[in-house]
Parts: sequence; C-alpha cells; structure tokens
Amino acid sequence: MKTSVPSTIALTILSDEAPDIKQAITAQLNHQAEKFADVSIDVVQCAMSATHIDVNNVSVLLADPDLAASIIEKSPSLTWCQSTWAGNAPLLQLNKKDYVLTGLKGVFGKLMREYVFAYLLQHARNIPTFAANQLASPPKWEASSRLPLNGQTLGILGIGSIGQALIPVAKAFGMRVVGLSRSGAHVEGADKVYTPDQIADFAKRADHVVNLMPDTPNTQNMVSYELLNQLKPHSIFINAGRGSAVDEDALIKSLDEGKLAHAVLDVFRQEPLPAGHAFWAHPNISITAHTAAESAPSDIADVFLNNALRYAQNKPLNYAFNFEQGY
Amino acid sequence: MKTSVPSTIALTILSDEAPDIKQAITAQLNHQAEKFADVSIDVVQCAMSATHIDVNNVSVLLADPDLAASIIEKSPSLTWCQSTWAGNAPLLQLNKKDYVLTGLKGVFGKLMREYVFAYLLQHARNIPTFAANQLASPPKWEASSRLPLNGQTLGILGIGSIGQALIPVAKAFGMRVVGLSRSGAHVEGADKVYTPDQIADFAKRADHVVNLMPDTPNTQNMVSYELLNQLKPHSIFINAGRGSAVDEDALIKSLDEGKLAHAVLDVFRQEPLPAGHAFWAHPNISITAHTAAESAPSDIADVFLNNALRYAQNKPLNYAFNFEQGY
Repeated sequence: MKTSVPSTIALTILSDEAPDIKQAITAQLNHQAEKFADVSIDVVQCAMSATHIDVNNVSVLLADPDLAASIIEKSPSLTWCQSTWAGNAPLLQLNKKDYVLTGLKGVFGKLMREYVFAYLLQHARNIPTFAANQLASPPKWEASSRLPLNGQTLGILGIGSIGQALIPVAKAFGMRVVGLSRSGAHVEGADKVYTPDQIADFAKRADHVVNLMPDTPNTQNMVSYELLNQLKPHSIFINAGRGSAVDEDALIKSLDEGKLAHAVLDVFRQEPLPAGHAFWAHPNISITAHTAAESAPSDIADVFLNNALRYAQNKPLNYAFNFEQGY
Repeated sequence: MKTSVPSTIALTILSDEAPDIKQAITAQLNHQAEKFADVSIDVVQCAMSATHIDVNNVSVLLADPDLAASIIEKSPSLTWCQSTWAGNAPLLQLNKKDYVLTGLKGVFGKLMREYVFAYLLQHARNIPTFAANQLASPPKWEASSRLPLNGQTLGILGIGSIGQALIPVAKAFGMRVVGLSRSGAHVEGADKVYTPDQIADFAKRADHVVNLMPDTPNTQNMVSYELLNQLKPHSIFINAGRGSAVDEDALIKSLDEGKLAHAVLDVFRQEPLPAGHAFWAHPNISITAHTAAESAPSDIADVFLNNALRYAQNKPLNYAFNFEQGY
C-alpha cells in the first residue's frame, strides 16, 4: 500500500556532469509524474567541484566517486550515496562505512557488449586489411583471411552483471562462453565458470578473453604472462575492466612473441594513458579512452530515480555495495 | 526402414575449388562412415574447367553455376545439380529445366551475420576515429561520438533464410527488426515485414538497411534514390545481396547529400569492381570483395552430403530451386 504522505529527498549532485544529470532528472520526473507523485526530489546542491559543497547539508548524494571521496568523511548527515560509476575504488579506501553506497549498474552491459563485439568482429572479418586494400593504388580486389567467431569460445574474466550481458550476444553468434569469478558459481548460459586458481585452464579453453574484473587487491596483475601464454595465435584480449588487472610488460612480451594476435585496451593504470607509453605505438594494440561503457546522464538519472523511489519507500536499494565483501 | 541395398552416386565436381571440395567430401565420409554406410559416393570426374568434363558421363553434378552453365544443356543424363552458390543466376537463363537444382543454403547466415554486425558496430563505436587518434602525434586520448545499436531498428531487404539469421543477433543487441519480402509474410522475430510496394515505409522505419535480395528482374535498382532519401543521417546501408539491386548514381548522390552516413558494399554490377569506379575512392563507402558470406569447401561438402543421403533414399532434396517461381 502506498503512503499518502509525500516524502522529500534533499539531493546533492557532485559530478563532472552535474548540470546534465540534474537536467536529466528533471526531464524524467516530468515524464513519470505519476510514478513519483509521493516523492519529491529537491536538488539542494549541484556542483562540479567538491569545494562548492556545504558538507553539513549533504544527506543524499549523487556523485562521481573520485569527487565524493573528499567530502564523504566530512558529511555527518550522509545516509546514502548513489555513485555515477560502476567501480567505487576511491570510496573504498575511506574509513567511513556507515552509509549506503549504491553503484551504477544495469546500464553498462548494453554498451559493453557493443564495444567487445565491435573489436572481436573487426578482427574476425579483417576489416583493416579490406580498408587498406581500398586505399591502395590501384585498389586491390582480394579476399583477406577471416576467422569466424561462430564455433569459437569467449572467455569472460569477471562474469558479473556486465559480463553476463555479453552471453546472449555470444550465443547468437554461435560462440561458447566460459567465465571466471571468485565463487565459480554457475552462470546461466555459460558452459563453465572457473575459479581464480583455475585461471590457466580458463585461458586454455578460450579463443578470446575479455577482462571485466573490478579493481580489488585480488585482481592486481591477474592478466599475467602465465595467463597470456595459454592463449592462441589468433586470440584477442580485451581489457575493459581496470588497468591494474594487467601486467603491462607481460602483455607486450606476449604480443611480441605471438602468444596472442591483438589486445584492445580501454583502461590503464594511469589515465589518460601518457603520450610516451609503449601501448600507444604497438601495432597489435588498439586503444580507446575509457569509453567502452561510458554512461549518459540519462542512464545515471534512471538508476538514481529508481533507487530514490525505493529509498522513499524504505525498500532495500538496488546495487548496494557490500563493504565487507568489497564488491 | 533403411534399405540394405547400397546405392552409388556417380559424382561430377566442377568448381574453382574442385580438389578442395573433393577432399572435404572424402574427409567427411571418413568421419561419418556409419551414416553413409548404404550410400557410396564415386567421384567420376573432378575438374576446375568445363572443357575437362565428359558431358555424357554427368548424372549428379556438384558445381559452380557459372561453370555449370556451359555443360548443363549438353548433359543428357543429368538428374541433379547441387550448386556451390546461394544464387543461381547463370543457370536460370538456360532452357533446360528437367533436372533438380539445389542451392547452397544454411551456411551463409552464420557468415553474413558476422559481416553485417562487424560493419554496423564499427560505425556505432566509431572505431576509425579511435584508430586515427592513436596514430596522431602526440596520440589523442579522446572520447569520440558513438551511437549505440541498442534501441535502433535494422531493416532487412530480402528477409529470406540468410536475412533471418541476422534476427537473433539484432535482438541480442537490443535492436528492433523490420523486413521486406515479396509476400510480406510474417517472419518470427521481425516486428513487421513490408511488401515491395511499401518500400518507402520500410526505409522510413529503419535506422540501417541491409540488402540481401536475390538477382531477379523485380529487384533491379530496388535501392533507388527514393528509398535512400528515406534514410537518416546516421544510417548505414549494406549491400550483400546482388549489385544489380542498387542504383549506383543514386547511392553516390545520397551519400554526398548526407541522406545516409555510410555504405558498405560487397557485391557489384561488375566484379571485380573496376579500378576506376567511383565507389573505390568515396570516403563514405567501404568495399569488400564479394566475401561477406564466402563459404568454405567444408560447408559445400556438408550440404552436398546431406542431400546425397536424401537422393539415395528418394527423399525430396533440401534447398531445391523452383524454376517457375524463380527462387
């Protein structure tokens, strides 16, 4: 039964995109007036920098984790922080844990699957060679080697909510899917899910590997020479998780030795990736700018508003972070 | 009940890839000895050129249609021709129609879906811009515009067996699908199937259009200025059907006017596409060499052997061509 007493959420927005997010929230409240009839969202502060925030006036916070990190411990009335990121590393180092931290989920999978398959298919169909043939003088009419994804196996390192969004697409292309997760628990649609101590078997089974592991102490350098050494000369490695998961020297060594065909990297230990970094100039590395699953302000507004409704109704919030388990 | 009398098929192979096809047939017969226990395939002729064929010794023919065209009318004992192509245009102009002509089907869909989505995703994720940013000096760390396939509509012009293979992939990416076929009959998974007289409505509804129409008198210049004019500035047009379906001048005009973003062309009126053709140098056209769904000898052996079993058992053959309907 719905309460007839309207509740008000006093919201602080702190984000690089704060004005756009505020606008997206307003727009969606207008579109869904009935759904939010009993909840009033009052944006009391909206800033792109932490210095503009009155910490004594922060109760519900919608924020980029890197910006939020500097105010969370100083905000005595904070009850809930909705993060605008999937990962929350900047907040996990803080001592303050007496608030609900919710992540941004459910929006990345649909972006990530397009990123991953764009690059897998670019190689499967050898698009760069056809493009070069077209630019040659005279242009070359020539079949170039192609290796269908159909029948191959996709390995997903970190088969959580984002990783699982890849499965229906992989299946539609006739691929098998194997995963790796901390628990090794069965995942619908995956042929097998390995545990971290079985990582070599996981890599041996996969034609291509996508890393989506979060940044935790356990995932540092998980993509090691030993793992890469199990891949095949036609393998593509895609890192769209966190830069710290990859042993950078091992990756370059493995590519130079032909242990795998190509790496597609979206995340790095240092971002932006420094201009002099060896990754930029490597012929078998493709670089994107931490854009694999970049959410739009409307995605953030969606997740926040659904949670705001739950908050007002005293229901457990979606995508709440477990400080003890670290994910 | 299986017959206990072994039947023998005297096979003539006539193809650019005749030796590879013969080898693939032998390999698969060895792998499936039990299944073919009562059928013996005797390759009596195997040639890459029609001049090496004894036409009086042709009964069952496995052949490239362009090569077969010169011997079919001279082969009095021909009962069945299994084509190595999806299309059979070279054979349809002949008067001889008193034999069973079967096409190569069921193998193209899995190749075609990778081709189509490789190019759709290359644009959705703006891969060329990221690649150029990486090659710049100094390299550019920059988000480039992207337009997710999720939520868009794929239009399939000629939604037959190959076109239908695109549907599960499109759905897995969160796309809607509309089709166009001669009958307009409902297709599982398609939101709507239009008839040729509704082609403008079809184009209006689609974000991207893939042409897979066969080469028939009715499909000449079906992709006209009127159709292209209904597309959107972000639309991709992919031609993997037949070159004759596209009005070439209209396509260049539409691209130059920004009626659509890009064209990906695999088939042409003249192949190889002549070096001086305007398509080669157009910045908004990507060209491939009639390789979108190029089958492997093992695919051809598969389809032939399944049909050979049906032939020996007097069952109707798969993918038989209807000379009256023209497809």
